[in-house]
Amino acid sequence: MEVFFAEPDQISENRIRLDEFESKHILHTLKKKIGDKITITDGQGNLYHAEIIETAKRIGLAYHNYEKFKKTVPEITLAVGFIRPNRLDMLFEKCTELGVNRFILFRSQFTNYVSFNLSRFYKILRQAVKQSLQYYLPELKVIEKFDEFIDQSANYDARLICRSPDDPGIITTLKDSEAGKLKSVILGIGPEGGFSPGEFEKFKKNNFTFVSLGKTRLRTETAAITGVSVLQSYLQYHKESNIGNR
Amino acid sequence: MEVFFAEPDQISENRIRLDEFESKHILHTLKKKIGDKITITDGQGNLYHAEIIETAKRIGLAYHNYEKFKKTVPEITLAVGFIRPNRLDMLFEKCTELGVNRFILFRSQFTNYVSFNLSRFYKILRQAVKQSLQYYLPELKVIEKFDEFIDQSANYDARLICRSPDDPGIITTLKDSEAGKLKSVILGIGPEGGFSPGEFEKFKKNNFTFVSLGKTRLRTETAAITGVSVLQSYLQYHKESNIGNR
Repeated sequence: MEVFFAEPDQISENRIRLDEFESKHILHTLKKKIGDKITITDGQGNLYHAEIIETAKRIGLAYHNYEKFKKTVPEITLAVGFIRPNRLDMLFEKCTELGVNRFILFRSQFTNYVSFNLSRFYKILRQAVKQSLQYYLPELKVIEKFDEFIDQSANYDARLICRSPDDPGIITTLKDSEAGKLKSVILGIGPEGGFSPGEFEKFKKNNFTFVSLGKTRLRTETAAITGVSVLQSYLQYHKESNIGNR
Repeated sequence: MEVFFAEPDQISENRIRLDEFESKHILHTLKKKIGDKITITDGQGNLYHAEIIETAKRIGLAYHNYEKFKKTVPEITLAVGFIRPNRLDMLFEKCTELGVNRFILFRSQFTNYVSFNLSRFYKILRQAVKQSLQYYLPELKVIEKFDEFIDQSANYDARLICRSPDDPGIITTLKDSEAGKLKSVILGIGPEGGFSPGEFEKFKKNNFTFVSLGKTRLRTETAAITGVSVLQSYLQYHKESNIGNR
């Protein structure tokens, strides 16, 4: 199954107008023609079952029905310090595949990289959503001030910060929480230089929980992918064991 | 801490001769000089505390002591079908960081890629071992025949194959095994096209266990990184909870 992408404003009642990027792929690579059926998501949980009615530079589609998908619970937010852009590309691709709902890029004392290209990141998120057959585009926020990042994290049910191999792992940490009741989790990972002692102190004062991702030293993007993998897998396990206990 | 790499045959009693790649990095990027102390691993569990005694094209070192590290248990083997080489690069880098002990590349019915560059892969393994502060270089094996891959997997204590979102997750699967007694685990992941029905049948006949990596569709390299993350994290959790129960 292959899914294509259209922004909500490209979709009106019964009609969709694709952008040039998607149109080119559909016409030139996949050789689709008028009358062929394709599926479109708007990244807002909707999947449109549509038919090609016009093969212009920007393909025109008609649809008669669509499905509405619910957001997954708990909502997972990955907060990560700025790192080298090509490693952020990989992080965004992989963590979107793994079902992250929101990305936060923050600046902290040891972040070295300043420039970034948000539209490039969005393109990666769109591709990964399509690839992994999900119908919600993750949010992407940039927070320039560390204290603002702390403030905005206050409302998450679980707030995990990766610190050192000597902290308990994510499974050990979540086992004693009521994982079934979590509505939102934020996982925070420092930039390549890690967090500063002062930053760790702020996390502590604001009741974040420190976790470990294992015994080896991981690059930031590896830590992010691993952290999200373990989080998702534990939440999945929790659902599976509840089914077993019914 | 930074660690450099030397093959066992570059190391003799009290002396090490680095290769040009490492020497260039140490002299030109890090600007090290005669008398500076650096640490070297041979990828066989040894860490040498050495001193630069000659700044030639291939640096000469003297050492007076070294540490011997034990291999981690259980030993983790990741078996993966051939995929696009740049995605294999990423898989090798990330999974080495996460502590995989052995990689097996196999061919199966739906593998499309034929060419590969083993020396390039080894270079990535070396870099990732250094980066993640580990002292064992993972093994890397290529198995051309699928049946041989099945045969060679017979001796692992746990044999997991990623199949479908409807299979139980890795944590659910391992929970009922005696994780503390496992000496070796093999995790198998198909190429982009997955395994064929006939191949799944062979896995079944040979008592492999089918597992899920979650509800979203993952690229092969993402599946590999996620699978290894969850496996390591569960084994870590198992150790942590045994410490708690003492």
